[in-house]
Amino acid sequence: MFAKMLENTKKVGPLIHCITNYVTVNDCANVLLACGASPIMSDDAAEVEEITSICGGLDLNIGTLNQQTTPSMFLAGKKANTLNHPIILDPVGAGASKLRTETALRLLEEVKFTVVRGNSSEIKALACGNAFTKGVDANLADKVTDENLADAIIFVQDFAKKLHSIVAVTGAIDLVANANVVYIIRNGHPMMSQITGSGCMLTALIAAYLAANPDHALEATAAAVSAMGLCGEMAYERYLRHHAGNASYRNYLIDAIYQLDGNQLKSGAKYELR
Amino acid sequence: MFAKMLENTKKVGPLIHCITNYVTVNDCANVLLACGASPIMSDDAAEVEEITSICGGLDLNIGTLNQQTTPSMFLAGKKANTLNHPIILDPVGAGASKLRTETALRLLEEVKFTVVRGNSSEIKALACGNAFTKGVDANLADKVTDENLADAIIFVQDFAKKLHSIVAVTGAIDLVANANVVYIIRNGHPMMSQITGSGCMLTALIAAYLAANPDHALEATAAAVSAMGLCGEMAYERYLRHHAGNASYRNYLIDAIYQLDGNQLKSGAKYELR
Amino acid sequence: MFAKMLENTKKVGPLIHCITNYVTVNDCANVLLACGASPIMSDDAAEVEEITSICGGLDLNIGTLNQQTTPSMFLAGKKANTLNHPIILDPVGAGASKLRTETALRLLEEVKFTVVRGNSSEIKALACGNAFTKGVDANLADKVTDENLADAIIFVQDFAKKLHSIVAVTGAIDLVANANVVYIIRNGHPMMSQITGSGCMLTALIAAYLAANPDHALEATAAAVSAMGLCGEMAYERYLRHHAGNASYRNYLIDAIYQLDGNQLKSGAKYELR
Repeated sequence: MFAKMLENTKKVGPLIHCITNYVTVNDCANVLLACGASPIMSDDAAEVEEITSICGGLDLNIGTLNQQTTPSMFLAGKKANTLNHPIILDPVGAGASKLRTETALRLLEEVKFTVVRGNSSEIKALACGNAFTKGVDANLADKVTDENLADAIIFVQDFAKKLHSIVAVTGAIDLVANANVVYIIRNGHPMMSQITGSGCMLTALIAAYLAANPDHALEATAAAVSAMGLCGEMAYERYLRHHAGNASYRNYLIDAIYQLDGNQLKSGAKYELR
Repeated sequence: MFAKMLENTKKVGPLIHCITNYVTVNDCANVLLACGASPIMSDDAAEVEEITSICGGLDLNIGTLNQQTTPSMFLAGKKANTLNHPIILDPVGAGASKLRTETALRLLEEVKFTVVRGNSSEIKALACGNAFTKGVDANLADKVTDENLADAIIFVQDFAKKLHSIVAVTGAIDLVANANVVYIIRNGHPMMSQITGSGCMLTALIAAYLAANPDHALEATAAAVSAMGLCGEMAYERYLRHHAGNASYRNYLIDAIYQLDGNQLKSGAKYELR
Repeated sequence: MFAKMLENTKKVGPLIHCITNYVTVNDCANVLLACGASPIMSDDAAEVEEITSICGGLDLNIGTLNQQTTPSMFLAGKKANTLNHPIILDPVGAGASKLRTETALRLLEEVKFTVVRGNSSEIKALACGNAFTKGVDANLADKVTDENLADAIIFVQDFAKKLHSIVAVTGAIDLVANANVVYIIRNGHPMMSQITGSGCMLTALIAAYLAANPDHALEATAAAVSAMGLCGEMAYERYLRHHAGNASYRNYLIDAIYQLDGNQLKSGAKYELR
């Protein structure tokens, strides 16, 4: 099933509208191209509704949230809702400032998201309103581990139920849940946290998979999460061979997304469904 | 002649002022350095006239057009006109939104451009006002092919005549035309469309070649288009050797621009002049 | 001592708040991760005080200065001063426009900086108010050489005394001075000027070293300058082995920062203390 999600993305080649941060925007664009989609970045209120109308999916990422482009996120989100386009929210740094937490919460109120993807600190900040976020990285205490897995699943599913959305909490163990079922995914490599943007890139990848698989949003999200993790593993092997560092690792990660095919994903995906 | 254009760029080392998008801006800066030029990115209305005054050329790219920096494009463009600096317009996504199409058309009215470079959809949107653009990539139906080449040349030359500018339509076949003559260039590789920013990088490269070769604008533009395509070919060979993906290909492309010398361009350029 | 500065940075893993330009921001983020720190980029006035409060250091870089984010620099700077966080200013392009020179000077008046780092043209523009800057690169006439070294040291120390800050003038020869002593550092490679952002990356690296070594600001700054230069040398060796260009060199530079350990820095650092 994951393989099919990947193959559909290459076949459909969806155009994805991103309103995203200026830190990792280039990587997100290249990840979209790597998986067979096409990117268009546009954040001016005067055009975002029109731009999102010609796209197949919308990626809202608050990594460098600012007051100029915040209204554009609402305009694009509402338009995409009208058109039934899939929308994904990446609440980067939610919990680190009132502006981020409150804007993300307001987006969740006014826009219906297909998927919300963040690290555990960010998702907790949105679900509980009281997490401390260590910048854009996950607070250590919040991490999903084998010890707290059962609790984490209940937490994520409760939040998914409340939002009527898919919630993806990513980290060493990834959870992709709706109100009823959860994918527990164990792909990935710690090296992914040594580059900026692995989360943002994953969000863009999910947007592409969603747009190409509109009737299988949960599977598409889980497939993208597994694919990104698997590419993180493949990139690490190449990194070891080349005695490289994190800049090369970033390139290898995107390269791996470019190279990944359905068979590799089928055989490399490590997940269970509960 | 192309070799001379490249060598002059390395010799002169022009400083290029870019008001460009935040997606590919880093690649554009490194491309300028790769070809022997220097970049300065500046987009605040309070300084763009001053900045463009110390530069040798101006690159206006509407890839992430927004209302904060649009007035800066007009200010810088008019100042550069006063100083007789070469100016190039990259109408990224023209046709995809009214904001993009209308801003680009308004720029063409109020600023005299040395060169306008885009893919066929973008140039058609500006010339006809009615093309549908698939985001920032060329709409398939619009592509220049051997079948529609004669018509495409008439179209591009008509537009060049109307603008009193050089028009460069780039894709599998590149056309670089003024009202009288056209270069038909067949360098390049399909892999160039698998990375973000190959068009933006080319626009920056043309700006550098123009600034270093002020009396040979048409040849400089054609040389830059051919050089970029040739580097795309060279990067593809390296890509094959390394079983790489699109992120590495992007690096190889910029590396190739860094390495390219006049002799290689002379022997690798594939073009005819009509 | 330099080794200790590096090792503390890896151990402490400080979170660094950057208000920086959109050209090299991704490289700065990856450099911070490479040295063991974590980046958070945030430039909206509504959140910068809160963001800087959860960080260990602040990096203000005016590379794409604009009127939307300028007030954020003052807010964040003053807040960081209140909290006694180290702050570094990178006056990119000071001297190239009134906006840049005056904003940088106003920042120096209203915010107490731990370190000011720029190339010689930029620092001269701030110290004298009359340098001509060739864009963001150092004006040739301003370079620190063995011939003008004695004068350059007096100049830098005078400026450091006036500011009550550490001043770092970087180029072929780097000077890191307070009012009393100066490090003369001879690491580095000319290839570093062939990529965009080597200065910005160094500023980010210094911010990390400062935040991790609050009681040794001068040594931390000098260690970061030496480390960056040494990594430039190591990257050049790898560049030669791969017949690469400037894009690969950029990746090798960041990779080298990722790989560098205290022993390598100890044996590779080339400096004298006067």
